[in-house]
Amino acid sequence: MPIAFESLLETAHKLANAASSVTLSHFRTGTNADHKGGSSFDPVTVADRGAEEAMRAIIRRDFPDHGIAGEEFAPVNEGADYVWSLDPIDGTRSYITGLPIWGTLIGVLYQGKPVLGVMDQPFIGERFWSDEQAAWYRGPNGLRRCRTRTCASLGDALLTATTPDMFEGEDATHFDRLAGSVRMRRFGGDCYAYGMLALGQIDIVAEACLKPFDIVALIPIVEKAGGAVKTWDGGEPQAAGRCIAVGDPALLDVALDRLRG
Amino acid sequence: MPIAFESLLETAHKLANAASSVTLSHFRTGTNADHKGGSSFDPVTVADRGAEEAMRAIIRRDFPDHGIAGEEFAPVNEGADYVWSLDPIDGTRSYITGLPIWGTLIGVLYQGKPVLGVMDQPFIGERFWSDEQAAWYRGPNGLRRCRTRTCASLGDALLTATTPDMFEGEDATHFDRLAGSVRMRRFGGDCYAYGMLALGQIDIVAEACLKPFDIVALIPIVEKAGGAVKTWDGGEPQAAGRCIAVGDPALLDVALDRLRG
Repeated sequence: MPIAFESLLETAHKLANAASSVTLSHFRTGTNADHKGGSSFDPVTVADRGAEEAMRAIIRRDFPDHGIAGEEFAPVNEGADYVWSLDPIDGTRSYITGLPIWGTLIGVLYQGKPVLGVMDQPFIGERFWSDEQAAWYRGPNGLRRCRTRTCASLGDALLTATTPDMFEGEDATHFDRLAGSVRMRRFGGDCYAYGMLALGQIDIVAEACLKPFDIVALIPIVEKAGGAVKTWDGGEPQAAGRCIAVGDPALLDVALDRLRG
Repeated sequence: MPIAFESLLETAHKLANAASSVTLSHFRTGTNADHKGGSSFDPVTVADRGAEEAMRAIIRRDFPDHGIAGEEFAPVNEGADYVWSLDPIDGTRSYITGLPIWGTLIGVLYQGKPVLGVMDQPFIGERFWSDEQAAWYRGPNGLRRCRTRTCASLGDALLTATTPDMFEGEDATHFDRLAGSVRMRRFGGDCYAYGMLALGQIDIVAEACLKPFDIVALIPIVEKAGGAVKTWDGGEPQAAGRCIAVGDPALLDVALDRLRG
């Protein structure tokens, strides 16, 4: 890559810091939901928009020729070599219900491949990120390297997904088949669950209806921690849609087989 | 009550502090699940048992004639005027997956009625408790009084439950009918969701298969914050089983009607 990785990472941390000022100022204020339109409830907050604006301003200043693909505003320069993937509040349902397991997602794609990711949970004071060699976590107890755990079989695996409502039509059947094979399933995680997978607490995250900005930042974190991320078809996960992350890459094929039936 | 409320509350805080030393020392260590027996997965941890032992030791010392009903060990002196209700780790699925929205629950019943509750989340550093007049929250941003919010109608309400798996048989139909009437539902909260209801972030928590120690400590917190807790039949919630908590008591009857069909 023509740009030093350290420069990208430094800017990514600045983005996370800037986003946190906005997201925290609106967290748990009690009245922070409106409607994107349509019949189903899709929370978007002033915080979501404000945080993405703050991040875009920093990218424009530090890397004016880079592309930006974010949740809240139209994409910019998507054909650039470097494209920033931004989700100011991943886990809006957690955010509006006051549960501090939402996160700010910042990813960098180089020629279409995710090369850097940050996931920040500012209320607790936790941040996950990847560098060129490893994935890292900093939290209330300090810094530690993220390492996924081994998991010999589906029968030993802990599985999470954000909500059963994300599986439409046959996806629900596929997910239920996988869920029926594991030791335990738990709903309600969003990006935070991928962080726990990177820390070796969760073995599988299987989700559907993901947008690229929901997953791009998490791919390098999971991979550099020792895990693997794919689509349910085994393709590159930055395509988003239906994705699976495993802590132990040896579990990938058997989990994909269960999802496919 | 013959014992000063302040004495009970002081001991309750000591219990929470003692439990946190144990629960935090085993949190996110990666290998903290075993089996209670039976075919379904029921995580119990060394932390669960150690924390309850630590709490029981303090009760035995401060109030040797009080009863104790806890998750992990046999009840003691259940016919006493004062009975302590203990759940060292409510939200074991959150705990073992590393999500910091589990809590330690400490309740006191006087002649069968819940009179005091503490819910502690030590990883984030958050504690909810009730005194005789009010409910309180202390967290990263300091102390605030808990107050539920008004919610005019089901169509405006945010609803949570710990997991769809807690609704067996007809309970699932009943819950789905309520969930279909609200603005948004979210799974995955355990005791933490009741704290968010007390802070005015969530409007309804509807759950089933609760044990008394899952709910007793939360009743005074929700009630002193302005909300109401009942069984789905409208009975006293310390009976546990199927319970509903609402932030706005005006919402109770309409929510119960939806649950009953």
